[in-house]
Amino acid sequence: MRNSAVAPGAVGDLSEAELIARVQAHLPPRPGWMLVGIGDDAAVVEPERNRLEVLTVDALVEGVHFDRAFTPARAIGHRALAVNLSDIAAMGAAPRLALLSFALPPHLPLADFDDILAGLTALALRHRVHVAGGNLTRSPGPLMLDVMLAGTVKRRRPLLRSGARAGDDLYVSGTIGAATAGLAMLSERPELAAEDGSPSVGRYLYPDPRIRLGLLIGRTRAASACMDLSDGLADAVRQVAAASGVGAAIDAEALPIEAEARAWFTAHGDDAVRAAVEGGDDYELLVAAHPRHRRRLEAARRLSGVSLTRIGVCTKDRAVTIGQSDGSTRPMPRGYAHFR
Amino acid sequence: MRNSAVAPGAVGDLSEAELIARVQAHLPPRPGWMLVGIGDDAAVVEPERNRLEVLTVDALVEGVHFDRAFTPARAIGHRALAVNLSDIAAMGAAPRLALLSFALPPHLPLADFDDILAGLTALALRHRVHVAGGNLTRSPGPLMLDVMLAGTVKRRRPLLRSGARAGDDLYVSGTIGAATAGLAMLSERPELAAEDGSPSVGRYLYPDPRIRLGLLIGRTRAASACMDLSDGLADAVRQVAAASGVGAAIDAEALPIEAEARAWFTAHGDDAVRAAVEGGDDYELLVAAHPRHRRRLEAARRLSGVSLTRIGVCTKDRAVTIGQSDGSTRPMPRGYAHFR
Repeated sequence: MRNSAVAPGAVGDLSEAELIARVQAHLPPRPGWMLVGIGDDAAVVEPERNRLEVLTVDALVEGVHFDRAFTPARAIGHRALAVNLSDIAAMGAAPRLALLSFALPPHLPLADFDDILAGLTALALRHRVHVAGGNLTRSPGPLMLDVMLAGTVKRRRPLLRSGARAGDDLYVSGTIGAATAGLAMLSERPELAAEDGSPSVGRYLYPDPRIRLGLLIGRTRAASACMDLSDGLADAVRQVAAASGVGAAIDAEALPIEAEARAWFTAHGDDAVRAAVEGGDDYELLVAAHPRHRRRLEAARRLSGVSLTRIGVCTKDRAVTIGQSDGSTRPMPRGYAHFR
Repeated sequence: MRNSAVAPGAVGDLSEAELIARVQAHLPPRPGWMLVGIGDDAAVVEPERNRLEVLTVDALVEGVHFDRAFTPARAIGHRALAVNLSDIAAMGAAPRLALLSFALPPHLPLADFDDILAGLTALALRHRVHVAGGNLTRSPGPLMLDVMLAGTVKRRRPLLRSGARAGDDLYVSGTIGAATAGLAMLSERPELAAEDGSPSVGRYLYPDPRIRLGLLIGRTRAASACMDLSDGLADAVRQVAAASGVGAAIDAEALPIEAEARAWFTAHGDDAVRAAVEGGDDYELLVAAHPRHRRRLEAARRLSGVSLTRIGVCTKDRAVTIGQSDGSTRPMPRGYAHFR
């Protein structure tokens, strides 16, 4: 029985089996290690020899993590996987397989459903991630995309948050503030999503998880601690410091704030440093490393092509501070409190 | 900053970190094989030697899979894990760890949040499942509980849907129709949730996934195919038949319809057989087995304490039929189409 309240060409026009077939149409053949993929009660995979399993899950919820009014469906799919890839990168692990659990409003256009899958599977292909299974259900409210990602890492090589020691240098990959500025720019001018000009908008819509950098840092044992910046730099520094039992002194002048984002914050009367350290969604890595490992980090930077900027140091004193250009020092902002 | 729009004692009063601490309070110490649990970017686990990994994910969405008006929070938590345990059981696998991804409306009472966790963790403990990590986010709409479950199975022992052959007997575990009747009873009389009298209501609220039965059937290679009844018996028979390239002839008289459910359907003018085969949520197992393996199934039945009833046979002819008490034969109903 067709639901007549649903627009033609919407996901509610199809059965679950028809939607699953559409998912499968986006997937490459399953690899030899995936003995059972989509279509049975569960997936069955051959574990990788002599490696540990690394598992994470993260959700994107419409109205909380994205706004369909100015986020293209392709970007929604990309981000749903990217946020999980970023967690795997922060462990120094190699991603391997994903399970997808989507709750779909029946009025979601089929074209959007396909674009979500296209965005997700294009990023999966780039990182050799195979979709092993999942679940599709109707949502009576927002669109929700939940992705579970599994990867592997060599024994004794996972990068934890808890290993930083006083005297370790703190580095951040790439640039910060871009996603926050990009989101603000997009919400003012949704047409920017279709252009290809702004690095900030590009970063917000299509973040590039630092898988290769994380792998190189893990493989060479360059870092004492690592975490991704999903909730912003301020939050990440506080979390690594708390988990490691150290403090941190960050130098505001050293922060690699994306130039376009800095200009945007300043033009809007915001403190660019504060906006950049509090803003989330950059999906860069925060890395703590003993000063003697500077060359290993340099090699990881060179081989990954992703910059690593020294932004401060871990301290014995447990305070987490940020030193300003005028020489004063303040507590690091609390950052992005994203439950409320 | 507290959100003043939120009732005191609701999840929106707490930060994500405070909610995660509440989750952790429900968990036993992490086992030795879980090297990193909740609190880092991802979980890290030691794989089990010489076993395959089995992975599944399933979601419970308020307004689609449960109604908070008559489903106690404890039962919601129980069911969120049980539906996944049932998938692992249908593979003949042993469950091991879960990742939880919850989208919580800010007005959800904290007492309900705790009861959801209590229901989920009590069932996890019973099946030795450890929570390795997860994600909590705000929902601007319904409560959504997504659970990813990982287990393991011996090589060459997973139970697939696709192995049934013409001449195999078809069995179903336990009884059917109970969850459908229980849900109907509850929606008429929500006070039944607090009582402990109706087996149908009990089955709907607290399904008992057939983990031990699945393990025994897998270990003894008793079955040629297996699937759980999440979407009802009619759907499961059709799916096993289609995946295996066979048909099936089911005997309506042989179906183990829960007595209370049969009485309820009949009293409400429904065809009890049709209601029982079309209704979902029973979480029993459908098993196909060569007749020479009858003793192995008998042993699995005895050791698990769960009944197994022969309900029909796989046929060379691809039709899926149900034979009535009057000697007539009809196509098996299409079953529960749960996307629309």
